[in-house]
Amino acid sequence: MASHGFWSLGGDNAGANAGSQSPSTPRAWCQAAAQKFSGGLGSKLCALLNVGDAEKSADPAAKLPPPGEAAGTCGCNKSCNCTKAAVGFSDLYSTDLLPASDGDTKTMTFLQELLQMNNWELQDEPATLDDILISCRATLKYAIKTAHPRYFNQLSTGLDMVGLAADWLTSTANTNMFTYEVAPVFVLLEYVTLKKMRDIIGWQDGRGDGIFSPGGAISNMYAMLLARFKMFPEVKEKGMSSVPRLAAFTSEHSHFSIKKGAAALGIGTESVICIKADESGKLIPADLERRILEAKQKGFVPFFVSATAGTTVYGAFDPLIAISDICRKYGVWMHVDGAWGGSLLMSRKHRWKLDGVERANSVTWNPHKMMSVPLQCSALLVREEGLMQNCNQMHACYLFQQDKHYDLSYDTGDKALQCGRHVDIFKLWLMWRAKGTIGFEAQIDKCLELSEYLYNKIKDREGYEMVFNGKPQHTNVCFWYLPPGIRYMEDTEERKKRLHKVAPVIKARMMEYGTTMVSYQPQGDKVNFFRMVISNPAATFEDIDFLIEEIERLGQDL
Amino acid sequence: MASHGFWSLGGDNAGANAGSQSPSTPRAWCQAAAQKFSGGLGSKLCALLNVGDAEKSADPAAKLPPPGEAAGTCGCNKSCNCTKAAVGFSDLYSTDLLPASDGDTKTMTFLQELLQMNNWELQDEPATLDDILISCRATLKYAIKTAHPRYFNQLSTGLDMVGLAADWLTSTANTNMFTYEVAPVFVLLEYVTLKKMRDIIGWQDGRGDGIFSPGGAISNMYAMLLARFKMFPEVKEKGMSSVPRLAAFTSEHSHFSIKKGAAALGIGTESVICIKADESGKLIPADLERRILEAKQKGFVPFFVSATAGTTVYGAFDPLIAISDICRKYGVWMHVDGAWGGSLLMSRKHRWKLDGVERANSVTWNPHKMMSVPLQCSALLVREEGLMQNCNQMHACYLFQQDKHYDLSYDTGDKALQCGRHVDIFKLWLMWRAKGTIGFEAQIDKCLELSEYLYNKIKDREGYEMVFNGKPQHTNVCFWYLPPGIRYMEDTEERKKRLHKVAPVIKARMMEYGTTMVSYQPQGDKVNFFRMVISNPAATFEDIDFLIEEIERLGQDL
Repeated sequence: MASHGFWSLGGDNAGANAGSQSPSTPRAWCQAAAQKFSGGLGSKLCALLNVGDAEKSADPAAKLPPPGEAAGTCGCNKSCNCTKAAVGFSDLYSTDLLPASDGDTKTMTFLQELLQMNNWELQDEPATLDDILISCRATLKYAIKTAHPRYFNQLSTGLDMVGLAADWLTSTANTNMFTYEVAPVFVLLEYVTLKKMRDIIGWQDGRGDGIFSPGGAISNMYAMLLARFKMFPEVKEKGMSSVPRLAAFTSEHSHFSIKKGAAALGIGTESVICIKADESGKLIPADLERRILEAKQKGFVPFFVSATAGTTVYGAFDPLIAISDICRKYGVWMHVDGAWGGSLLMSRKHRWKLDGVERANSVTWNPHKMMSVPLQCSALLVREEGLMQNCNQMHACYLFQQDKHYDLSYDTGDKALQCGRHVDIFKLWLMWRAKGTIGFEAQIDKCLELSEYLYNKIKDREGYEMVFNGKPQHTNVCFWYLPPGIRYMEDTEERKKRLHKVAPVIKARMMEYGTTMVSYQPQGDKVNFFRMVISNPAATFEDIDFLIEEIERLGQDL
Repeated sequence: MASHGFWSLGGDNAGANAGSQSPSTPRAWCQAAAQKFSGGLGSKLCALLNVGDAEKSADPAAKLPPPGEAAGTCGCNKSCNCTKAAVGFSDLYSTDLLPASDGDTKTMTFLQELLQMNNWELQDEPATLDDILISCRATLKYAIKTAHPRYFNQLSTGLDMVGLAADWLTSTANTNMFTYEVAPVFVLLEYVTLKKMRDIIGWQDGRGDGIFSPGGAISNMYAMLLARFKMFPEVKEKGMSSVPRLAAFTSEHSHFSIKKGAAALGIGTESVICIKADESGKLIPADLERRILEAKQKGFVPFFVSATAGTTVYGAFDPLIAISDICRKYGVWMHVDGAWGGSLLMSRKHRWKLDGVERANSVTWNPHKMMSVPLQCSALLVREEGLMQNCNQMHACYLFQQDKHYDLSYDTGDKALQCGRHVDIFKLWLMWRAKGTIGFEAQIDKCLELSEYLYNKIKDREGYEMVFNGKPQHTNVCFWYLPPGIRYMEDTEERKKRLHKVAPVIKARMMEYGTTMVSYQPQGDKVNFFRMVISNPAATFEDIDFLIEEIERLGQDL
């Protein structure tokens, strides 16, 4: 913690390139001051001083007191003997602060005290509404600006105004999805929307079943639960001891929730067999078939294949038709994890990437990702009607009375793992009304166009190396930035080691300056690379240009 | 569906007793008209005509087109041959409607068409903002008014203004709990709040672990998952086939999520052994010990006891100290499902009901119930630090990079079953700030006082019979209302049968009039009874008086 005594924050307007500012601005003074300190302390301090500006800008980076201290271990609220108290402010004037020559400690302490006036502890006594408003302002000020068009850090970005309004209405209605009795409108809208989504998948007349669940990981877990129950219904009462050893299959590039689900469901992570992916991240069907046969020979029963439509890192789409042929051949449940890529079904230009999805038994599709629906909104769609109910129902008579005065098939609670279930449907439904299907299509197409623009811009640019060849299938663009100091080195272990450190440092600096945010990670034997994703329809070509300039500005000395 | 061609709705101001109105009001006309129809159609129609009033009032009952039709099978949007179209409105005047002697069909059709102008289908083309506002108004109009002080239907009621504001802010921040990087403030507030809750439970210095999960059922499932992993850590990789047959124990009055969790986790519902409860719904410790010994003899390994602090129906508190003695003796994980009753820990007057909770290994506590925090807000609190992380982590390198520039222990994602996790913390934290602990205490004490008032009022009142003797421990008051026609019958099967139908009919009428809502259910060999619960601090003594009058008004003819 000690090294994080101050905050990684940003402050200048996202568009401004700090390097080009006049030295008379606070920003420029900060940059000069920053060079006095080691360990990034200077730039953190610098950013700290720009807190005020941040309220006017929409910077994506955070501004917040340090976790350990703000969390109460040393909030300096009342009685405290920490070194900070050693600085007495009653004798000091603003001229004692930096750039005064002995101003370092005083300045840091002063700023730290200032921040800690935001006290996050819970008390016995009530606070005034004024205090509550201050807390709210502080919370928003220190929040990551996930709606900023240069926030590229996650698959869920942006903030749709109709979606926001709908979420506000949902909060106001404050009800639960378990029975039609207490959420008649929302239950109906879930019905209408799931039907429409199944229709788009290609299931006849939109028939089937489904549920909105708390995120893609839980949707995937539902799918695995249904697959197991379909093959061995006795597992519900008798547990896994009544069932042979099961095997599930998914690509080595798939989402970790498949393993997490297997661990939770008592199947075990070792029963999740990772299938090889090709260079661009797509599952290799021949390897799937080989591993299914191998598992059968070892006495395992293959019960579940999870194909990925839009992998987390590469944005790859597994070949669904070939996979479904194998699933049919061996009688295995086919799930498509389209948490990230499912939304491409709404684009006439891109939906071919999911060809074969209509053959799946279940599909995860998260509108909170590529459709910019406020968090959270994840759907599991199931081809077989009635299965979810049979799998999960427990007939709790205190909730699902059988003698109600309406059609009980509208009570959705008994097909869920949850009892109370949050209303996630209204924001999607209202956005869909507001945009129409063609509106979603347009924003999805635009994000894909932006990522193609990025790909074309960097694929032959000096200092960039693509992680895999070929045009990306989704908005994921994976690349290394090679600073000049590495660019001309031979491909040795030493080069790899240095390259591995580039992305983390650039990202840390992005967050310190508060100008943009982008994700990085290693994958297999590949050292840390940037993964750009675009899901915010507010992003523009200029934002992509800015990202490249910013990476080069922040990484050129590495 | 046919019998629900119209809606169960309400319309008059909740406080008004319709029977006392002058016959010249629409309400009185409705009541007269209602007598012309069978099957409750009249009162439904009557309520329908009051839709306009409903916007001004805060009626708890729903107003909505019928599920099957509004869901699109016959929305009569464009081309439709249903009988409704047979009525041509271009030749009709308002005088052709009821009370015109042949006005029945015309009136019904007219009203049905009117309602169906709210078209809930999703289209390709965008809608105007005006349409969007109309949809929002319709949604709120048809919603159940869960914040109404006479809505007693669920454990979660009310609408706290600070909680609402906080939920709006949360929507606006639109981020995810998985990493500190994207939700620094919310991660910290979760840390602070969980610590405070553990402190209130009585764990030393608030130490331990925990998470906010999507509802009490998932919190309970987490607890079971942790208990299994604690005893058999190899289950994570190897699944249930590496583990002996397990047995879990919970009271016959416990929440169905314990069985649901066991089904999902591959343990099986038959491995959940139901322990006898006494007359007031409390688990009998001697029976627990007997069943643990019995399970061991059969070769099962007892791994999990879920005691309930506040059962769903009776509001009973299991004897935690005696249960913990047994858990310690047999080395079994003790979970306390305090989803409903956990909040009593905040009341100096009532927390003795949870004496022994500090001995638990894990506790579920839902602030969205008795503390009126907007849905959803459920916490699982765990005594052992680090266990959640070990149990659930999958080391996804694309999300939880190990070379970030901050303390990674603040990334909460890898201890969750979910990947993305909704921000449920801010509304609780802000309400706590606004009320202080003493504010929550006061509102909890008030609800318990109201339920005691109800209990005292009906326990000796003619026509009432309590489901169990003695003062309720929580706000649950369980009783039968015996209409005069049943009141003096002998205790035969015939009487039972008739009594069983009383609560459903009264409730249906409550919903038709839209004046109040209260839950009912059978339990064991007990026929349908009312379960009153109070969790809305806006409720008053007058609301309790009203409920009793309303039950008698609506049930006297049964």
